[in-house]
Amino acid sequence: MSVVVTHTASDLNPEAALTTLTDLVRDDLELCNRLIVEHMDSPVALIPQLAAHIVAAGGKRLRPLLTLAAARMCGYRGKRHAALAACVEFLHTATLLHDDVVDESNLRRGQASANALFGNKPSVLVGDFLFARAFQLMVRDGSLRVLAILSQAAATIVEGEVLQLVTQNDTATTEEQYLQVIAGKTAALFAAATEIGAVVADRPEAEALALHRYGHDLGMAFQLVDDALDYSARQAELGKTVGDDFREGKITMPVLLAYERGTEEERVFWRRVLEEREQTEADLPQALSLMQRHRAFEDTLARANDYGQSALEALACFPDGPERRSLAEIVGFCIARAR
Amino acid sequence: MSVVVTHTASDLNPEAALTTLTDLVRDDLELCNRLIVEHMDSPVALIPQLAAHIVAAGGKRLRPLLTLAAARMCGYRGKRHAALAACVEFLHTATLLHDDVVDESNLRRGQASANALFGNKPSVLVGDFLFARAFQLMVRDGSLRVLAILSQAAATIVEGEVLQLVTQNDTATTEEQYLQVIAGKTAALFAAATEIGAVVADRPEAEALALHRYGHDLGMAFQLVDDALDYSARQAELGKTVGDDFREGKITMPVLLAYERGTEEERVFWRRVLEEREQTEADLPQALSLMQRHRAFEDTLARANDYGQSALEALACFPDGPERRSLAEIVGFCIARAR
Repeated sequence: MSVVVTHTASDLNPEAALTTLTDLVRDDLELCNRLIVEHMDSPVALIPQLAAHIVAAGGKRLRPLLTLAAARMCGYRGKRHAALAACVEFLHTATLLHDDVVDESNLRRGQASANALFGNKPSVLVGDFLFARAFQLMVRDGSLRVLAILSQAAATIVEGEVLQLVTQNDTATTEEQYLQVIAGKTAALFAAATEIGAVVADRPEAEALALHRYGHDLGMAFQLVDDALDYSARQAELGKTVGDDFREGKITMPVLLAYERGTEEERVFWRRVLEEREQTEADLPQALSLMQRHRAFEDTLARANDYGQSALEALACFPDGPERRSLAEIVGFCIARAR
Repeated sequence: MSVVVTHTASDLNPEAALTTLTDLVRDDLELCNRLIVEHMDSPVALIPQLAAHIVAAGGKRLRPLLTLAAARMCGYRGKRHAALAACVEFLHTATLLHDDVVDESNLRRGQASANALFGNKPSVLVGDFLFARAFQLMVRDGSLRVLAILSQAAATIVEGEVLQLVTQNDTATTEEQYLQVIAGKTAALFAAATEIGAVVADRPEAEALALHRYGHDLGMAFQLVDDALDYSARQAELGKTVGDDFREGKITMPVLLAYERGTEEERVFWRRVLEEREQTEADLPQALSLMQRHRAFEDTLARANDYGQSALEALACFPDGPERRSLAEIVGFCIARAR
């Protein structure tokens, strides 16, 4: 079982895979975007103002794109998937708003975050609003199966985030716990986003499961790469700060590997900077150098690659075509971002 | 159309109405409480720990009691209403958790609030968790109509809360805006809680509407009384601080009436303490004295009473019986708390 990804421009430029996917479902995405703008409206003007800052300002729309392409790959020919893709984006945006409050982040996609601009209070409440709106849209769609998948995902996302809070600043965190954190905070929504593509197309359970696995493994790869990127100079090129996770004492895969493979002296360093959070300017370069010495980045990316391969395998049961090729290329995109 | 409330012990002691209602649906409430404890569980231990602090620690369970009694009054004989009552309590608790973060409150029901005890971050996330769990429970129940009612209520609650944020510290807030705030933040969930009682019993639309109106008007009365209580010595007896709204500059009905009826000099006082939030120790007593002078409490309670009468009228289409009598008495309970 393997999916042959034909060599295309996206091997040279990973962004090309995203462009190809976006072009493939352009009309569906436009409908999805219209529904997003329509349903974040409210007579209370601050709600669409704040929501527009984060929803309408863009981002890649990766999760809704996955729903749209998965539904089309499954032969779906209607319009329901656009509303469900909007639900996925609303849930994602709600978690971003609450994450930025929880992480006290001032930057999001290289711009001032909603909480920095509007304050924590409206960010918490507008997150709640988008969450409620997502469920209203699902109810209007009328599929209890979709509602079950996305409400389960919403609960799992929070479990991952709470576990992340609990393991933060704790160098005793295990690789298993870390994987549970990212399975929740990231992979759960990717998995739900792709699975509902099969559900809306009324495909057999095996295909829903395959798309769940594709989304889950893609999400795992995506987050592993994200966690490596946080320590990479590439991050600065993407308009994000380098070392945010380090400053917050988040225990991510590169840290886990460097700590696990480090000497006792190095572990004293890690405990000081991550647990006691006593950091000086020299500490981030020192952390980077320890991670390089222990091949923490390479091995984080190797794990991302394994999940990527598994995601590709999950696509094998679907017919070849532009959607499957594009979903396969997106795996490359998620991994190659780190280059 | 009028409902005769027979004179009972609850006229002497308003708490008796709550006891009567609780006794009437005792078995249903026990099932609801079991479902609450069961569904707030998670392998991430901090979630049930924090949730237990606020959910299991009690409170009156007024909203789920309303769902249970409304369903019974409509002749429902099954068990689904207990799960739906648990959903209502989860939604209520999620909003309490987020409210306390937004209001920076340190006290809830006379005890340390979850955010004071566990921090803002887990409070935001566990609120999200309970929200997701509520929807999972509704999906399991399987009624799209109930899902529509409660997802709409969740969005309306947030609209009320955001409008409250926007009008805070603004003495130009109109009575209409204030009523819109409390219709959202309080009456919407009361209305949904009672309406789903008719839905679960599969009663005609007119009864669902009547129960929606009963819950809405009861919620309006409840919040008006709450806003009066915030300035009352009774508040201290209930284990809450007097003048919280005053210190935060919340524009509630007693303030609106005192401001509207005040001299220009008095309005200068109100603007200083509520808009500029320059408060000294003498200001709360001064505010109380102005409110008394302008009969702000009496007239706030008179409005609560009008809503209460309207709630009673909404019950007229239901058959007389212990449930209707108890729901009628609860109106008295909500209003008499201010005494």
